Amino acid sequence: MTTTADRPSDFKVVGTRPIRHDGYDKVTGRAKYGADVQLADLLHGSLLRSPHAHARIRSIDTSKAEALEGVRAVITSRDLPEKPTPPTNFMEMLADPQVLTQICLARGKVLYKGHAIAAVAATSKQIADAAIDLIQVDFEVLPHVLTAEEAMAADAPVLHETLRTKDPTAGADSGATNIAAHHQLKQGDIEKGFAEADLVVEREFSTKPVHQGYIETHNSTVLWGADGNVTVWTSTQGPFIVRHQVASILNLATSSVKVVPMEIGGGFGGKISCYLDPVAATLSRKTGHPVKIAMSRKEVFEATGPASGTNMRVKIGAKRDGTITAAQVNLVYEAGAFPGSSVASGAGTCLAPYKIDHLLIDGYDVVVNKPKTAAYRAPGSPQAAFAVEQTVDEITQKLGLDPMELRLKNVNRTGDRQANGVSFPSIGAKELEEAIKDHPHYKTPLGDGHKGRGVAMGYWGNAGMASSATLSVTSNGQVSLVTGSVDIGGSRASLAMQAAEVLGLTAEDVHPSVGDTDAVGYTGVTGGSRTTFSTGIAVLKAAEDIKDQMMRRAALLWETQPDDIQYADGAFVSKKNTEDRLSFKELAGKLMDTGGPVTASASSDPKQIGPSFAALLVDVDVDRETGKVTVERATVFQDVGKAAHPSYVEGQMQGGTAQGIGWALNEEYYYLDSGVMANSSFLDYRIPTSYDLPMIEPVIIEVPNPGHPFGLRGVGEASLVPPMAAVANAVSRAIGQRVTELPMSPGTLLKALSGDD
Amino acid sequence: MTTTADRPSDFKVVGTRPIRHDGYDKVTGRAKYGADVQLADLLHGSLLRSPHAHARIRSIDTSKAEALEGVRAVITSRDLPEKPTPPTNFMEMLADPQVLTQICLARGKVLYKGHAIAAVAATSKQIADAAIDLIQVDFEVLPHVLTAEEAMAADAPVLHETLRTKDPTAGADSGATNIAAHHQLKQGDIEKGFAEADLVVEREFSTKPVHQGYIETHNSTVLWGADGNVTVWTSTQGPFIVRHQVASILNLATSSVKVVPMEIGGGFGGKISCYLDPVAATLSRKTGHPVKIAMSRKEVFEATGPASGTNMRVKIGAKRDGTITAAQVNLVYEAGAFPGSSVASGAGTCLAPYKIDHLLIDGYDVVVNKPKTAAYRAPGSPQAAFAVEQTVDEITQKLGLDPMELRLKNVNRTGDRQANGVSFPSIGAKELEEAIKDHPHYKTPLGDGHKGRGVAMGYWGNAGMASSATLSVTSNGQVSLVTGSVDIGGSRASLAMQAAEVLGLTAEDVHPSVGDTDAVGYTGVTGGSRTTFSTGIAVLKAAEDIKDQMMRRAALLWETQPDDIQYADGAFVSKKNTEDRLSFKELAGKLMDTGGPVTASASSDPKQIGPSFAALLVDVDVDRETGKVTVERATVFQDVGKAAHPSYVEGQMQGGTAQGIGWALNEEYYYLDSGVMANSSFLDYRIPTSYDLPMIEPVIIEVPNPGHPFGLRGVGEASLVPPMAAVANAVSRAIGQRVTELPMSPGTLLKALSGDD
Repeated sequence: MTTTADRPSDFKVVGTRPIRHDGYDKVTGRAKYGADVQLADLLHGSLLRSPHAHARIRSIDTSKAEALEGVRAVITSRDLPEKPTPPTNFMEMLADPQVLTQICLARGKVLYKGHAIAAVAATSKQIADAAIDLIQVDFEVLPHVLTAEEAMAADAPVLHETLRTKDPTAGADSGATNIAAHHQLKQGDIEKGFAEADLVVEREFSTKPVHQGYIETHNSTVLWGADGNVTVWTSTQGPFIVRHQVASILNLATSSVKVVPMEIGGGFGGKISCYLDPVAATLSRKTGHPVKIAMSRKEVFEATGPASGTNMRVKIGAKRDGTITAAQVNLVYEAGAFPGSSVASGAGTCLAPYKIDHLLIDGYDVVVNKPKTAAYRAPGSPQAAFAVEQTVDEITQKLGLDPMELRLKNVNRTGDRQANGVSFPSIGAKELEEAIKDHPHYKTPLGDGHKGRGVAMGYWGNAGMASSATLSVTSNGQVSLVTGSVDIGGSRASLAMQAAEVLGLTAEDVHPSVGDTDAVGYTGVTGGSRTTFSTGIAVLKAAEDIKDQMMRRAALLWETQPDDIQYADGAFVSKKNTEDRLSFKELAGKLMDTGGPVTASASSDPKQIGPSFAALLVDVDVDRETGKVTVERATVFQDVGKAAHPSYVEGQMQGGTAQGIGWALNEEYYYLDSGVMANSSFLDYRIPTSYDLPMIEPVIIEVPNPGHPFGLRGVGEASLVPPMAAVANAVSRAIGQRVTELPMSPGTLLKALSGDD
Repeated sequence: MTTTADRPSDFKVVGTRPIRHDGYDKVTGRAKYGADVQLADLLHGSLLRSPHAHARIRSIDTSKAEALEGVRAVITSRDLPEKPTPPTNFMEMLADPQVLTQICLARGKVLYKGHAIAAVAATSKQIADAAIDLIQVDFEVLPHVLTAEEAMAADAPVLHETLRTKDPTAGADSGATNIAAHHQLKQGDIEKGFAEADLVVEREFSTKPVHQGYIETHNSTVLWGADGNVTVWTSTQGPFIVRHQVASILNLATSSVKVVPMEIGGGFGGKISCYLDPVAATLSRKTGHPVKIAMSRKEVFEATGPASGTNMRVKIGAKRDGTITAAQVNLVYEAGAFPGSSVASGAGTCLAPYKIDHLLIDGYDVVVNKPKTAAYRAPGSPQAAFAVEQTVDEITQKLGLDPMELRLKNVNRTGDRQANGVSFPSIGAKELEEAIKDHPHYKTPLGDGHKGRGVAMGYWGNAGMASSATLSVTSNGQVSLVTGSVDIGGSRASLAMQAAEVLGLTAEDVHPSVGDTDAVGYTGVTGGSRTTFSTGIAVLKAAEDIKDQMMRRAALLWETQPDDIQYADGAFVSKKNTEDRLSFKELAGKLMDTGGPVTASASSDPKQIGPSFAALLVDVDVDRETGKVTVERATVFQDVGKAAHPSYVEGQMQGGTAQGIGWALNEEYYYLDSGVMANSSFLDYRIPTSYDLPMIEPVIIEVPNPGHPFGLRGVGEASLVPPMAAVANAVSRAIGQRVTELPMSPGTLLKALSGDD
């Protein structure tokens, strides 16, 4: 199947598939990651972590650790400022600094097994680890809660005495509680909607916390200079975010912190919050040396943020013809030990594929004695889609309708109202659903055996935020490009291509690099499916500026006005005298004679974002004896607006699908009753390998986004939204009954098949 | 004595003395120099150098070296492309690539003792050195010439068979010669001028090659990536120059070479040409590893460029009242083994202090069997000033006139004609000379003993060239500044201060950094006294752009037009409603609400440069028994336009004077007849220490340069022009006879005093 990305277009570079600029460095091992940072006099840090899920810290005795030869400093939360500086703009932080600092080093109480308590800097990692064992902590162990259900019980132990439910709909003080927030979205009259329905399906669902699956563990190397300036080398999705977080937590001026982003071995939302940087910084301040801390895999599992485990209830009513009349969704998301799950995003996105007049969505953010959850690719949306898309599927089954027919009947279009009442910007849900319906996969009969086919939709917005870029012309007619966007999935290439498109150059003519926080203007996180889109707009603006400047140079050479110059097919031509013609490269060679170098900086702050719909169509075979599910065919569809670099778009779609199949079938944080995670390694926490997956066929749909000059939408996240629901729909159809909990591991399925559910 | 720099001014930041931004890193040892570069799998390189001053290479046998365990590659000139790519713009190279490549590795002939012949990359420096000893070269030793006098003799051995004299005044082919070029400057009718004179003084002078005295030796680390991109880490004055030189020599696209400038331990003109980079690059290409080569001190002396040794003749005629009627100057400069001394600069500057209607200057560039000369602070000018300023001094003696009176009578002013016929831009020679005349030092009587007072003038232009800069506003209202200018003498501070002045910030509010060649637009060499001046203009343009953008943001907030906003005293104020007032910092906190980050890039290509006159007033005491000269008092005067950071300007003036006193009294490359340099270490090549110098008092004169918004002139070089002449004038007056050769070491003086001259 050809995708629209391969159709002829007016673009010369956008839509092609050049080799990424960082490809050679990555495959030859030259690319430098956080753990590769080596500095003179480097000290190594280790963290003491809580053995308890919930306990009061009566006292900490660090004296023996301090006395160990080779130990240079030991710190606890007392060494961090009590009150972080509030951010000037919350978007700069993406997290509450008061929470971040308590995650960095626990204050008064530990709230989960693995919670950091103290840190050591020593001349070797071995000595630092040995010193950790010498720190004595006197704990008063407290009862803990591991699930939202337990945490919401009336007599549940409370994690934070001062926590009150944030609830715009409630008047009274909630009293001490573990329910951090209640979000509600409401349209129409839900009772009226259900009254209009011929069929109402209601089901409960639950999911477990899952990991983003990045390979590189968290790391940070920090030098607190003698002049008070702090330099942080780290693998992060957001160097400017880390800059703000560190400055805030340590009460420093933002601009006295410089963050140097190293290459990143995966993030998927998990590398935005700082865990180590303020700790390494404080150890560096105390010792005068640079300090490096790198987590073990176990630390990553026990002390950084997974996606929320959830409990969800969905009730949907429909007419006999498939028209959905009402939907009610109740979402309870585990926040981990501090408030702030992504339940609001789940609430905002879960009904996006459907035009429903009457809806009510309630979301609850609940603290439990597990590590604070973090973003994971379309944060909050995949869980809710698992619940909603299964319920929709059950309606199509019960009404005897084609799943895509029902969806097309209820599809949202550009300008329709979202659950929050705001109109959709340009969207391509209808085009996407039609493409599924027309796809050979959808029409191919399933083979014999316990097979099922499932389909599900997924939606994710597109963060705009701000980015900056600088372009400079070289004397041989190429350009260098500096952005502040960490390159996770090929953004050096996709950004260089946008510059090349404007300037009539090739992708290889543009030399992209990722600047540190002093080297380029403020740039938001690489996340929210925003990088190629929003940083792209900054790049395009700078490229247009370069083009304008070049036209002025040509005008100078030909003694005419810039308005008399046109630029097309890589050449500047005088409209008055077409013999006056210079290619970009030729004109670049004349810059020194016409006023000096040409360079331009620009920033973006896009208002009109490009949200994206994705869908997964999947065939499974269920082994009824073992409960093992085999994914036999998978086709992922996404409206990407315009695929800047189709191979990397396809890679995003395939990657999200692979992660989603893992989430569907295998992955979960498995906690013992004690609050100890029992599978904190990649041997026991099983992400899919190539043996577990079929070739995932990507189908690119391109409904241009008018908010980007080339029509780009945010691409990175939407593909993770549908897989769990799609696989569950396939499995349900294969075995003839609904599976409502994740993961659909052999154990879960055998339990369902035996009727124990 | 207060200098004008300390007078009250309209500037808030420019003219103050903040701590330099890189100060802490430099004094705590954190700053990273070229030799600090460490990369994974690094190989170390060494060079085989010629033991002969002139020899034909019959053959090179590298087989034994290649067989040594640990050796990864051995290369000779055959491994470099035969024909470098001609530069698109000669200014980008600052040197002939065909010459550079032959300096990197000799072709066919060696032309000086120390000339590189072959290079080895090995797993350690020790192995590389051992391998060098195993390379066997079969030489045919040729007769050599070590001085211009020898080289110009009719029967002299010729270095380059194909060399012909570049001489616009000559018609016929010169035939094979060592005279590479003849420059001539001519005004009026020299015979007529001398005929008008009441007194004519004519003298011959000679000087020896001298070293720039930088402490850090040359170094280069290069990685030739698998993708064909080459990264160079090196200590250089011109990263963009090195980029062009390396690309040209290796026939690469300019933009496929990235040069990362490390901190630099001195340059003074000696770190512009590449010696090691193409060699390390070729070794890296052959091995797939990064390769580091760092010179020993001996290699620096034997194989990099000193300032030219010279032979000069000056004839000046004057009327009884001191009016100079004519001047004839003959300059013969050693070029070293390849053409390209700075004789043309000597010719162009030597008569600059004097308005003379009739003048004739001839300059000869002569190749000899010594390393190719390089730039050294005001290249070519100090030698010629040594000759001219002594001759002028002798005229004042013979006419019984005051040295400053005579100079003031003949002083050049703005708009007067230079020796090349071009009018002087704004100059402050008169103000400078008046300041000398009025200075207490000039009026204080000399004490008893063999004492003398000398004064001399010096002139140096100001290279404009092009520079680029990028400024970005941080959310806390500071700015980061990226330039391409390597910081040798405090330019991070002086550039940050210019941005701060425009933006109403403090110097500390600006965070300057030096970008690599991919991180910022093209920027010329840190040299030619241009950095604070020309890069400053790029910074000012970018800062003005930032200010404009900020005003538009304020206008947006206050729903008015940018024209209605004014910026003064660090605050944006609405002209319509003065209660609408935001400081730069306050407005910076609102950027995310008004369109995103603010960032700007700009470049400079200044046409109106700001040349600088300097003078040294010096008192000496000569020990007639030992010939030792003691400098008892030294006052250096310079018209700097406006001192951006007076401490660093004073440092430049003091540094140039110190170097000049060394050149005057001690320094010389001492060659044995065999062509071997006998004093190739800092023990034997004696630069002055603090024991050798008095406190050098700097007197800043500020005649603003209209070519820079703040009036800055190029400052770095002029102070090295007068010292040798000033000391010679003082010595001559102390001992009652002219000393016409450098250095005026005890040996030279004893010879003069004994009448052996």
